[in-house]
Amino acid sequence: MLLCDIGNTSYHFLNHKHDYKENVKTFKPQTIQEKIYYICVNTEVQKALDSLDNWIDLSKFIDKAKYYETMGIDRIFACEAINNGVIVDAGSAITVDLVEDSNFKGGFIYPGIEAMQETYKSISPALDYSFNYKLDLTQLPKNSRDAISYGYLKTLYGEVRSYNKQIFLTGGNAELLLHIFPEAKLHLHLIFDGMKKVLKEIILSPN
Amino acid sequence: MLLCDIGNTSYHFLNHKHDYKENVKTFKPQTIQEKIYYICVNTEVQKALDSLDNWIDLSKFIDKAKYYETMGIDRIFACEAINNGVIVDAGSAITVDLVEDSNFKGGFIYPGIEAMQETYKSISPALDYSFNYKLDLTQLPKNSRDAISYGYLKTLYGEVRSYNKQIFLTGGNAELLLHIFPEAKLHLHLIFDGMKKVLKEIILSPN
Repeated sequence: MLLCDIGNTSYHFLNHKHDYKENVKTFKPQTIQEKIYYICVNTEVQKALDSLDNWIDLSKFIDKAKYYETMGIDRIFACEAINNGVIVDAGSAITVDLVEDSNFKGGFIYPGIEAMQETYKSISPALDYSFNYKLDLTQLPKNSRDAISYGYLKTLYGEVRSYNKQIFLTGGNAELLLHIFPEAKLHLHLIFDGMKKVLKEIILSPN
Repeated sequence: MLLCDIGNTSYHFLNHKHDYKENVKTFKPQTIQEKIYYICVNTEVQKALDSLDNWIDLSKFIDKAKYYETMGIDRIFACEAINNGVIVDAGSAITVDLVEDSNFKGGFIYPGIEAMQETYKSISPALDYSFNYKLDLTQLPKNSRDAISYGYLKTLYGEVRSYNKQIFLTGGNAELLLHIFPEAKLHLHLIFDGMKKVLKEIILSPN
């Protein structure tokens, strides 16, 4: 079974246990002939896929009333994968979503690592540092690199920790965030798990 | 007495009680003939001012050992102005600095409002919203505009509130942040107050 999670920058495929990525700018979806289940947040790619019969959009099988209208479908499928916990999906944006008893309780959107590094750099060349993930979050910083690292990471950390829930880390930059959330479960295939769960429900459904 | 606080984008003057701004790209500092006390974070402007005798750099009169080497001089002068509290200076960056018993305890740097709005927009056109400052910070959001507003504002709010200190709001966007820190003191001339205090100490000094 072939699954695909399409973001703003890449197609992320799962072929049984093997996953790989293709760039949205260069990959041609019509090169795939077999049946493929997908979700897609990229409106341009979505348009191209609408005309391909073997690409099956799993978003159509979701009870959208549980979520909100403009919520990214990747966030929805990550929520579908768990019953309780907070999901931190670190991609071009970092989305944080709370799930309690299989119900979505709300969530927020924080800039991704690369975007935020660009932001600091754009404010001043004096802030052009890579983040320090090994920073001591219990001490207010006294140097520039830690001052931006703390500004980016500690504020996120404090908010996410305040829910007192199991943290699920996913997305392309999940491993970097594991430094600040060492107690989190690293679950790089969380969205695929949500897709499999929804697929299973479709197959088992009496309709 | 003429004071000037020079940032990345503007010269901020204080002439007795009247303050006004000039753009760093267009203002010519040599047009000022009288004695003027200044601080400057802008390296290009600093170079130009070094050759003007009537522009007196107040940064030379600070005990830098109390701070750290690359700390912006505007942050240092804001800290000089208070004895206890947390300073939130909302400009192109938002700097947050903690002062206890006239000692700098550390601080961090967070992106300013315009920079952060650009960041969300750059991640996805679907995130191109202005922030909602009247957002309920006690509820996880269920719409896109609030999801980015919460991501930007609640994370900052939680960290700043965690110090349990009087909050001093300053900088060009201070009034916007007053919505989320209603208990804060709005003090738009905090840096000028620090400059005046340092000037007074120079005058009173036996050397």
